[in-house]
Amino acid sequence: MSSERIAALQALLPAVDVDALLVTDLINVAYLSGFTGSNAALVVPTVGEAVLVTDARYTERAAVEAPGLELVIERAAGAAAARAAAARGARRLGFESAHVSVDEHSTLVAAAGSAGLRRAPGLVEQLRAVKDDAEIAALRAACALADAALADLLAAGGLAAGRTELQVARDLEDRMRDRGAPGPSFESIIAAGPHSAVPHHGPTDTPLRRGDLVIVDFGALVDGYHSDSTRTFVVGPPTDWQREIHAVVAEGQRLGRAALRPGAVSAEVDGAARSSIAGAGYGEAFSHGLGHGIGLEIHEDPFFTTTGTAALAAGMVVTVEPGVYLSGRGGVRIEDSLVVGDGEAESLTLLPRELVEI
Amino acid sequence: MSSERIAALQALLPAVDVDALLVTDLINVAYLSGFTGSNAALVVPTVGEAVLVTDARYTERAAVEAPGLELVIERAAGAAAARAAAARGARRLGFESAHVSVDEHSTLVAAAGSAGLRRAPGLVEQLRAVKDDAEIAALRAACALADAALADLLAAGGLAAGRTELQVARDLEDRMRDRGAPGPSFESIIAAGPHSAVPHHGPTDTPLRRGDLVIVDFGALVDGYHSDSTRTFVVGPPTDWQREIHAVVAEGQRLGRAALRPGAVSAEVDGAARSSIAGAGYGEAFSHGLGHGIGLEIHEDPFFTTTGTAALAAGMVVTVEPGVYLSGRGGVRIEDSLVVGDGEAESLTLLPRELVEI
Repeated sequence: MSSERIAALQALLPAVDVDALLVTDLINVAYLSGFTGSNAALVVPTVGEAVLVTDARYTERAAVEAPGLELVIERAAGAAAARAAAARGARRLGFESAHVSVDEHSTLVAAAGSAGLRRAPGLVEQLRAVKDDAEIAALRAACALADAALADLLAAGGLAAGRTELQVARDLEDRMRDRGAPGPSFESIIAAGPHSAVPHHGPTDTPLRRGDLVIVDFGALVDGYHSDSTRTFVVGPPTDWQREIHAVVAEGQRLGRAALRPGAVSAEVDGAARSSIAGAGYGEAFSHGLGHGIGLEIHEDPFFTTTGTAALAAGMVVTVEPGVYLSGRGGVRIEDSLVVGDGEAESLTLLPRELVEI
Repeated sequence: MSSERIAALQALLPAVDVDALLVTDLINVAYLSGFTGSNAALVVPTVGEAVLVTDARYTERAAVEAPGLELVIERAAGAAAARAAAARGARRLGFESAHVSVDEHSTLVAAAGSAGLRRAPGLVEQLRAVKDDAEIAALRAACALADAALADLLAAGGLAAGRTELQVARDLEDRMRDRGAPGPSFESIIAAGPHSAVPHHGPTDTPLRRGDLVIVDFGALVDGYHSDSTRTFVVGPPTDWQREIHAVVAEGQRLGRAALRPGAVSAEVDGAARSSIAGAGYGEAFSHGLGHGIGLEIHEDPFFTTTGTAALAAGMVVTVEPGVYLSGRGGVRIEDSLVVGDGEAESLTLLPRELVEI
C-alpha cells in the first residue's frame, strides 16, 4: 500500500516543478510509509526510491512498519532528509510549507546546501482526501463501532436524568473501548441544557435535568481512522421550541447530505444546509461550518464553509453537521459521517436522527 | 493567574525588540490566557492589554475562561491578531517562529500591513519551563494519581503472566480514570519480553510470559498537566543479565537525579547518567536522551541530551529516564518526574524503583 501511495505522490511532483518532496508532517509520513514513530521525515524523489529518516528509538519499529524503505537514523530528521535528498541529486526540493515552521525552514535551507527549497503545500493532503478501500473499511468499522457504543449506552439507560455529562462521556468511551477501539477519536462532547448551546463544550459534572436538550458528539478510533457523529436527545417530553429547532436542523442536514455529489463545491454543500436553516429564521444561530473530511485526522480536507472552493470527489469521507444554538437555552446538532459516491452519499453512521426522548 | 503570566511575558519583550508578540501556539495561548478552544491567537503588547481572538464557536467559552481579556471573534485568528496588533500601533510584531508555518507566516505578513514581523521563538516556553505553585500542585496530583493506579493494578494482580500488553494498558488507564483523571497523559507503553528492547513500543496483543522483562511507561493527566514515569518488572525470577542491566540503569538514574540542581546544564545531567551506564559497558544500548520537561505537554523544555546547553532552574519539573535495550532480548527503563529545587530534587513519583518480580 505504501508503495502505491508514494507512486501517487510521485505522479503529482512534476506539476509543482520539484525533484523531490520533503515530507515532514508526521501524519503524512505515516500515510505514505506506514511508519508511526513520533520523529520522522520522508524524502520522496520524482523518480526512484523513497528514504525514511527517524532516530535510534525507532530503528526496530521502522524496520517492521516500513520494511521496503531505505532507512537513515538521525535525530534531526528534517535536516537529515534535506541532506539525503541533496546528496541524491535533487536540486529543487519541495517542502510542506503549511506544516514546516519558519525556524525549521531555516534549518532545512542550511541542510539542503546548494539545492533550493520550494513551497509545495497540500500534496499529501490532496491524496489523503480521497480514501482507498482499506481506509473506507476502517472508517466504516469506526462508525459502526461508535454507533454500537451509543446504542449500548441507550439500552443500558446510561443517558438519563441525574447522570453528569462526565459520567455519560466516560461510560460512552468505555463502551467504545469494550468494543475494541483503543480510544475515542476526540474528547466526547456531552452538552446538557444551556451547555448544548455551546458548539464545542467539554463535559462537566453538571447533571442531565428534565427539560434539557442533550447533544452527544463523539467518535471512535479504529486502525488510526476517526469516526464523528452527533445526535441530540431531550430529557422528558420536548417543548415546542425544542421540536422546532430539531426539525429545522434535521431538514438542513438532509439537504446537506443530498448535496454531496462528485464535483459539488464546498460552499454549495454548506449553502444547501445553511439557506434552509436561514430560511427558517435561524441563520445567525448556525455559527460554524457545515462539516469536514475525516480520516487519519478528525478534521481534514475537504472543509465545508460559506466560501470554500474545494470540489468533492468520489471516495471522500466527510461529515455533515449543522446546528442551531440558542444562547442560555439550548441547541441541536445532527451529524453523520458519509462517503461521497457516484450516486447518493452513503452514511456510515446509521442511528436514527429523530429527536429521541430519554 | 493569566494576568501575572502575561505580565511576565511582557517583561521579556523589550529584550527581543518588539512592540507586541503574536502568540499562536494553542498551548501557549492556553497557558497565558486560560482559553482552551481549538482556534485562537493572542496579542500581547509590550505595554497595555492583551487581545484574544477566536471564532464564533467559542464566544461563550472565551467569556468564561478568559474573562479579563478583550475579545475579537474571527475565524482566521492569526491574521486577525496581526491586524489587531497593527491597528493598536505595533510596528514590530514578534511571532512564534518555532510554531508558525511558512504559509501562515505569509498570511501574517499580509495582515500586518506596514508593521514588520520579527522572529521571537521560545518566549512563552521559557516561562512555562519554570512551574508556579499551582502547576506543581497539578503535576504532583497527576504523579500521585498515576502511582496509585499502578499500585492498584499490582495489588489486583493485573500485571501478570498471560495478560496481554493491551489488556494491561487498558486496565491501567481505566484505573487512572477511576481515580479521576480524564485520561492518560500519553499512550501507555506496556512492553514485554523482546518488546521491552524497543524504547517506544505501542501495546499489542502479545501476552506477558515467564522470563519477560516488562516495561510500564505511563502517566496521568490532571488539570491539563502530564505525569510521566516508568518502572520495569520481571515475570518470575530474574536472570543474571536482567538483574545486571536493571542495576546499571538504576545506578545511572540515581546519578541523573542527583545531578538535578539549579544551574546544571542539560548535557551535564545527561552525562551524569550516561557515563555511568557507558562505564558499565552499556553506552551503545542507551539510545535516547535522559529526559525532558513535563507540564502542559508531555515533552517540553528543558530537554536532556548529550549536547544540550539549557541550564536548570528551581521550579522546573523534569523526567530522568535512562534505559538499556538489548535487541531481541529485552530492556530496562526507570523514570521519575522530579521538581528541581534549591537542594536535592524532589521526586513526584514515589513507587519503589527495584526490579519487582510479578
